Amino acid sequence: MYTCDINRMEDKIKTFAKFGDTGHGGITRFSLSPEAIMARNEIKTRMTKLGLDFKTDDMGNIYCTLPGTDPNAGVIMSGSHCDSVRQGGNYDGILGVMTAMEAIETIVTEKIPHKHPIQLVVWTNEEGARFEPAMMSSGVITGKFDKSAMLASEAKDIPGYTFAQALKESGFEGPESNRMDPKKTTGLIELHIEQGPVLEDKKIDIGVVEGVCGMINYEFTFRGQADHAGTFPMPYRKDALYAASQALIYLHEQFDNLDSKLVYTTGKISCHPNIHTIIPDEIKFTLDARHQDPAVVAKCVEIIKNMPKEWAKCTMTYEEAWSRKTVQYAPDFINAVEESAKDLGYSNMRIYSGPGHDAQYICDIVPTTMIFVPSEGGHSHCELEYTPVENCWKGANVLLNTILKIDNK
Amino acid sequence: MYTCDINRMEDKIKTFAKFGDTGHGGITRFSLSPEAIMARNEIKTRMTKLGLDFKTDDMGNIYCTLPGTDPNAGVIMSGSHCDSVRQGGNYDGILGVMTAMEAIETIVTEKIPHKHPIQLVVWTNEEGARFEPAMMSSGVITGKFDKSAMLASEAKDIPGYTFAQALKESGFEGPESNRMDPKKTTGLIELHIEQGPVLEDKKIDIGVVEGVCGMINYEFTFRGQADHAGTFPMPYRKDALYAASQALIYLHEQFDNLDSKLVYTTGKISCHPNIHTIIPDEIKFTLDARHQDPAVVAKCVEIIKNMPKEWAKCTMTYEEAWSRKTVQYAPDFINAVEESAKDLGYSNMRIYSGPGHDAQYICDIVPTTMIFVPSEGGHSHCELEYTPVENCWKGANVLLNTILKIDNK
Repeated sequence: MYTCDINRMEDKIKTFAKFGDTGHGGITRFSLSPEAIMARNEIKTRMTKLGLDFKTDDMGNIYCTLPGTDPNAGVIMSGSHCDSVRQGGNYDGILGVMTAMEAIETIVTEKIPHKHPIQLVVWTNEEGARFEPAMMSSGVITGKFDKSAMLASEAKDIPGYTFAQALKESGFEGPESNRMDPKKTTGLIELHIEQGPVLEDKKIDIGVVEGVCGMINYEFTFRGQADHAGTFPMPYRKDALYAASQALIYLHEQFDNLDSKLVYTTGKISCHPNIHTIIPDEIKFTLDARHQDPAVVAKCVEIIKNMPKEWAKCTMTYEEAWSRKTVQYAPDFINAVEESAKDLGYSNMRIYSGPGHDAQYICDIVPTTMIFVPSEGGHSHCELEYTPVENCWKGANVLLNTILKIDNK
Repeated sequence: MYTCDINRMEDKIKTFAKFGDTGHGGITRFSLSPEAIMARNEIKTRMTKLGLDFKTDDMGNIYCTLPGTDPNAGVIMSGSHCDSVRQGGNYDGILGVMTAMEAIETIVTEKIPHKHPIQLVVWTNEEGARFEPAMMSSGVITGKFDKSAMLASEAKDIPGYTFAQALKESGFEGPESNRMDPKKTTGLIELHIEQGPVLEDKKIDIGVVEGVCGMINYEFTFRGQADHAGTFPMPYRKDALYAASQALIYLHEQFDNLDSKLVYTTGKISCHPNIHTIIPDEIKFTLDARHQDPAVVAKCVEIIKNMPKEWAKCTMTYEEAWSRKTVQYAPDFINAVEESAKDLGYSNMRIYSGPGHDAQYICDIVPTTMIFVPSEGGHSHCELEYTPVENCWKGANVLLNTILKIDNK
C-alpha cells in the first residue's frame, strides 16, 4: 500500500488556511475573491512545479493533469472547491483539493506507475455564498444551469457586480473547449469532510459514500387574524403561531414514524407582525427533509399532502421550494474506496451524504464517488470546523489507493 | 335624560379624522407632531368658543374648564388622548376627547345646571408610538415616571430629537402649577373604544368598565445546537424551534385550564440563525397574559415557574419583561355609568379593559372609571378601527349623564 506524507499534508492545511484567514480559526473565501485567487495561484504554483499541465475552462474550473502511460486511458479526476461561506472553516471543499494534491504529489515523488492521466479538479463557486446558486460551475458543465443566467448572477456584497465580471477579472477564465470531456474521463473521486457527527461518534476513520440523499424543501404558510393581545378572548382568536406550532409538532410525530435515517428540519420561521401585544396573523416556516431512499422521501411528501389544511382556525397552505432526487454513486468506485480503506486497516462504514456536492452533478456524466472523513463535533460551515491532520492524511491515503485501484482495472 | 346631538358628534368625528389622514381610512398622528398640533388647536378653538378656560401643564396636558355653581366643588374631568400609532384609526383616544367635548357642548348649549366645574382633559403621548413610554404624561403627573427622563426620551423617527424639544416647539407647554390637583378634583371618566370584539359580538351598546386587567409579560429563550440540516441524525439534535413549539403548546394547555377570561399571547418569536438548512440554536418568544383577578395572574406565574427547564434536549430560561397589577376603578363611578346606561335604555355589561389607558394611572390619585363602546370587528391600532356614529353618540350620552349623576351626588 502506498501512503502520503503526513507532514506535507499538514503543510498544505496550514498554507491554505492563510488565504482568507479570519483571525479566529476560520476563513472567509468567497468564490473569485482576492482570497480565493490567492488559493488558486497557490494550487497553480504547486501543481505546475510538480510538472502537471494547468488549464481552466469557461467557468473558471481548474484542471491540473499528470499524464499516464496509456494514451487511450480516460482521465481519473479528483478534487473539490476552494471557496467558503462567510466565516467558514479550513476543511469544507479545500480538503478535497488538498488531499488530491497530496495524492498526486505522492504519485509524482514516489514515481508510482499509472496508465491513466490523473487530474486535480477545482470547481468554481460551490458554496454560492457570494453568487447564487451553489454548485454553479459543475452545474453549468453538466447542463443543470443555463450558463448565461449564471454569468449574470449578481454578488450579494456588491450590487450590480456579476459573476461574469468577477470571472474575467480573476484571470482564471479559459475556453469552453477546456471543459472536462466525459468521453475522455474515467471518473471522479471527491473527498470531503462529513459535515455531520456520525463518523466521529462511531469512531470511524472513513465514510464510504454511496450517494446523496434525496431532499425536499417546502414552505408552509399559516394565516390567522391579527388582534390586540389584551382584548381578544381566546375563543375568538385565530393565532397563526399557535397553529404553526401544532402543525410542526404533528410533522415531527408523523416523520418520526418513517425511518431512523430520515433527517428533517424547520430552520427558518417568520412571524407577522411580530409584536408582543398583537396576535400573529401570518407564520411561515420551511421544512427540509432528506433520505437516501426515494420511497421514504415520497412518504414525507404524502404526509404533507394529507395534512389538515386548518390548524387552530387558521388556514395552512404550502408550496415546494425545491427538491433533489437521491443520487447513487458508481458501485465500482464505491467498492474501490471501501477496499482501499480495508487494505489500509482503517475503520470504515457506508454512508449517504446529506448536503449537496459538485460530485452529485458530475455523477450524471461520468462514474463518481466520494470519500468522507470525520468532522469534529459534526461542525461545518463555521470556524469550529475541524478534522485532525491524521484523519486528513488517512483520507488522502484512501484517495491515493482508490485512484491506483481504478487505474489498475 | 339629557342626550347629545348626533349630528355634532358626527361632525367632530369627520373633523378630527382630517388631522393626520392617511388617505385610506385611518390616521398617523404621532404625539406633538404637526398633525397632533392641528388637532390640539381644533380642541382649543372649539372649547374657548364655548366659553371654557383653556390651559396646559408642563407635560402639555390640556385642561379646558367649564365653571360650576359651587365654588367648593371639585372638578369632574373627562377626556382621553389625541395621538395615534402609525396608521392608526379615528377612534382610539380621540373618541374619548370628542365625546367629552360633545357632553360639555350639550351642557353649555342646553344650559344644564351643574355645581361642579366640568373639565375636558387631553393627555399628551398616550401611545408612546414616537416617544416611549406609553401613557407618558398621565404617568408623570401621577408619579409613575421621572419627568426629566421623559423629557429626554428620543423620537423613534428623528435621532436626537427629544420629547422636551417637541413639547417646547408645540406651543402647548405650560407651568407645572397647572397640573390637575387631586385635592380639587372629584374624579375622571374616560370613554374609549373597547379594542376587542366582546361588545359587538354580544350586541351590547355600553361596556361598564370595572378596571384594567393585571398583566405579565415574559420572554423565554430556548438554546440548542446549530448543525447542518442534511447531516445531523435526529437523535443527536438539539433543535431549539422544536423545543419552543413543545413549550408553547404546553403553555396553551396549562393556561387553558385556568379561567375563560384569561387572555395570553405569544406575539413575537425570533429564530437564530434562521436559515432553512441549519438546525436553530436559539429561539426567543414572548408571553403576554392578562386577567382581572390577580389570583389568576399569579397562577400563570406559577405555571411558568414550574415549567420543565429542558425541552427536546434544549435549555429553557425565562425572564419577566414587565408586569402590571390589576387596577380597580371607583365603585361609585362604575355604578353611575351603569345607571346612566340603564336610564337611557342602552344594553350594557360590566367588563375589564385588557389594554392600558391613562385612566389607570389617574385612578391612583382620584376616583376614576371608563366607558367602553363597541369596536367593529374588534379592530384597533389599525385603519380598520371603526365604531358607528350611533354607538359613539350613545357613549357620549352615557358620559353626559354619568357626569351629571356625579355632579348631583
